Amino acid sequence: MTLILHYAPDNASLCIRIALLKQGLPFQTRLVDRRARAQRDTAYLALNPHGLIPVLEAPDGPLFETAAILIWLDETHGDLLPPRGDPTRAAALSWLVWLSNSLHPALQILFGPARFVPPDILPPLIATTRTRIAALLDLAEAHIPAAPALDAYLFPMLRWLALYPRGETAWFDLARWPGLYDRAAAWETSAPVRAAAVAEGLGARPVTRPQPPNPPEGSPT
Amino acid sequence: MTLILHYAPDNASLCIRIALLKQGLPFQTRLVDRRARAQRDTAYLALNPHGLIPVLEAPDGPLFETAAILIWLDETHGDLLPPRGDPTRAAALSWLVWLSNSLHPALQILFGPARFVPPDILPPLIATTRTRIAALLDLAEAHIPAAPALDAYLFPMLRWLALYPRGETAWFDLARWPGLYDRAAAWETSAPVRAAAVAEGLGARPVTRPQPPNPPEGSPT
Repeated sequence: MTLILHYAPDNASLCIRIALLKQGLPFQTRLVDRRARAQRDTAYLALNPHGLIPVLEAPDGPLFETAAILIWLDETHGDLLPPRGDPTRAAALSWLVWLSNSLHPALQILFGPARFVPPDILPPLIATTRTRIAALLDLAEAHIPAAPALDAYLFPMLRWLALYPRGETAWFDLARWPGLYDRAAAWETSAPVRAAAVAEGLGARPVTRPQPPNPPEGSPT
Repeated sequence: MTLILHYAPDNASLCIRIALLKQGLPFQTRLVDRRARAQRDTAYLALNPHGLIPVLEAPDGPLFETAAILIWLDETHGDLLPPRGDPTRAAALSWLVWLSNSLHPALQILFGPARFVPPDILPPLIATTRTRIAALLDLAEAHIPAAPALDAYLFPMLRWLALYPRGETAWFDLARWPGLYDRAAAWETSAPVRAAAVAEGLGARPVTRPQPPNPPEGSPT
């Protein structure tokens, strides 16, 4: 089976790269050139009409949406969520979708607020979004279970909060959530994450000591 | 197996009720009294720390997030998504997560904009959100595949856009998306949807001729 990950460095495709490496699956990558807005090209929109990164091309056709790809990879190859029949799978699925539809959309507002409101009212939207994200991370700190799919989705988001938008991240300090910090510190030194960090130029401690990416190809924005 | 759906009428729990009826599974319901903000009670937060409706209590513990519950119900009892091994399952999972993290969060902004920005800048946020929702429905019109899980999530959202917030829905006309309209018209007269509509007081044509709910118990807001 050939899997092709359409990616841009330090984008949500990172979550899928980490999952594939965790599963030990062979895959190819195709850079999406964000500087040329290649995610809006006709060829890319044929894979994902919503024009977002990532897409995973599989023998069953193109998959999109990070959580959907993680669930499909788990269904087909295992090792990302508790197995079917394990009673902890219910909570893991719940929190995976929560990451996708509560935390991730809040980051999308923070990283691209001009898609949501006119330019003159960006600051209040950004302020309330930061407050909401902090409250969501309080929930994650208290409740989110451990599973490779959850780690692969959550910890890159914690990295991005420390780095993006450039120059506007002083509000965020992961140390405020010590449980997440400690879990991220162990996770980021695992073999799949180290391999992904090398592939995308993310440095040795991509979550707890994040540096702007220095990718071998492409651009995160 | 005992399944208990924590619901409020015409809330996202409607999607789960329809799915359970489609699957023919026995289930009990527990009203969440939104007028008393029961979704923020300690007992409810123990089921879903995020305090949102629905929760499905299952032998494996409480599930939350509509898309997660739909995926779990499909995994455990089938009939909501193409089966595992069917190549169309990949696209169905992608679009299900898309409903959860793209369309549904936009509705949450539209129905509760004061959670996102200060009161003095609600109108521009509402205006851009309407434009975004219309663009998302253009995507759905062109691309969303047919599957019971997708129908059970999408069509209630189309109902809510026609009804909520009360008095602010003149912008929305489902006829602008004729493919979705026709599909909704067939869907809303199916036996599971009619049974759910009776249970929650939604009328005979809950999507194409929506009326405010007249539920036997509880309140939608």
